[in-house]
Amino acid sequence: MKYKTCVSIAEKTPTKIKQVLKIALKKSDYVEVRLDFLKIEQIPEALEIIKNDLNKIVCTLRPKTEGGKFPGNEKERIAILKLIAEYSPFLLDVEYNTLKNDTALVKYLKSTKTKLLVSWHDFKKTPSTAELKKKLSQMSKFSSNVKIVSTAKSTNDSTRMLELYSKKGKNNLISFAMGDFGRISRILCLYLGSPYTYVSLGKAIAPGQFSVDEIKKITNLKK
Amino acid sequence: MKYKTCVSIAEKTPTKIKQVLKIALKKSDYVEVRLDFLKIEQIPEALEIIKNDLNKIVCTLRPKTEGGKFPGNEKERIAILKLIAEYSPFLLDVEYNTLKNDTALVKYLKSTKTKLLVSWHDFKKTPSTAELKKKLSQMSKFSSNVKIVSTAKSTNDSTRMLELYSKKGKNNLISFAMGDFGRISRILCLYLGSPYTYVSLGKAIAPGQFSVDEIKKITNLKK
Repeated sequence: MKYKTCVSIAEKTPTKIKQVLKIALKKSDYVEVRLDFLKIEQIPEALEIIKNDLNKIVCTLRPKTEGGKFPGNEKERIAILKLIAEYSPFLLDVEYNTLKNDTALVKYLKSTKTKLLVSWHDFKKTPSTAELKKKLSQMSKFSSNVKIVSTAKSTNDSTRMLELYSKKGKNNLISFAMGDFGRISRILCLYLGSPYTYVSLGKAIAPGQFSVDEIKKITNLKK
Repeated sequence: MKYKTCVSIAEKTPTKIKQVLKIALKKSDYVEVRLDFLKIEQIPEALEIIKNDLNKIVCTLRPKTEGGKFPGNEKERIAILKLIAEYSPFLLDVEYNTLKNDTALVKYLKSTKTKLLVSWHDFKKTPSTAELKKKLSQMSKFSSNVKIVSTAKSTNDSTRMLELYSKKGKNNLISFAMGDFGRISRILCLYLGSPYTYVSLGKAIAPGQFSVDEIKKITNLKK
């Protein structure tokens, strides 16, 4: 079985995205393009630049309230999310907290048959197993592609995130923990059925992230 | 397949060893008793105390030059190693550097049919793959039970220690890296064929070590 990677790229100009995307696609199955690192007016240009590779791209437009950089207000962000949806990326990552408060957006994304990755992040801790299971169940109402990420302060936090795989049912679950204690979960999630793991091209973007080269060496290990 | 653990215990009195061993054997397949934490004159008493459980015990008498605490000189240590051998433990851990310089000891341990675990540690770095392969080959002349441990300063160091499993041949290889970057190797070594992984009962004794409870949760994870 081949374990897949998704390189996260967070560049500040469309030209930089173009350059880095080319390199990333040579090394990785998928690439996440963090469009929230751009100025709003640069996003349409960026979409035009990446459109031929969108079948391998996860588009993300993270708001500041969820650890992102999107510089505009929420109305602007929803408008841009709809614009991205028109391009039919491999996956459009939209936060659970966004979807749950915006029925119109949910309806719109359904009408455009957008492949949705519903995501939820905890940047401070790892919730209890009961809370995580509840979250998974609530999130899966919006999409069968579910991403739940926490912050591990111990090995047990990390393990708790991995225990979710036994509860995933038919969902495509991406569940792991950030931070040093979470590093093992970024590898073990693959062995437990995660469709891919997020990696960096060079320096880590998220805490505890491995580079694509590091992960490839690990998943290629043989007895 | 069941992944096995070996709890390391490093207590300062025979009575303490007795207490902790009992708890450790309930949780772990094997237990390593670090006899070098005792005073020399306490070691015979400790051996008498643990003798009924020796079929599950790895005995280690590490000298200071290899990160241990043995308080006596090398002549005394060799004498005690021979005494331990008489008790026929599951494994007697003897350093490669000890064996390679003491033909008489090697001969003695062969005559007593001692099950030897030949060990080598690098507390500062992880050698190159070429050096590691050479070490493995040299060490396996003394025993088919080989333990090679390094210190990882990067994920790639840790991976390099795991790459050794593809070169182990018929040896029982225990190869992993210490330190924060080595943590993943303490788990992945099991998946690659290590007969067990070293764990702590509570607080870690070696850098990056997991507790027996943590490892059990991880190896019990299901899809």
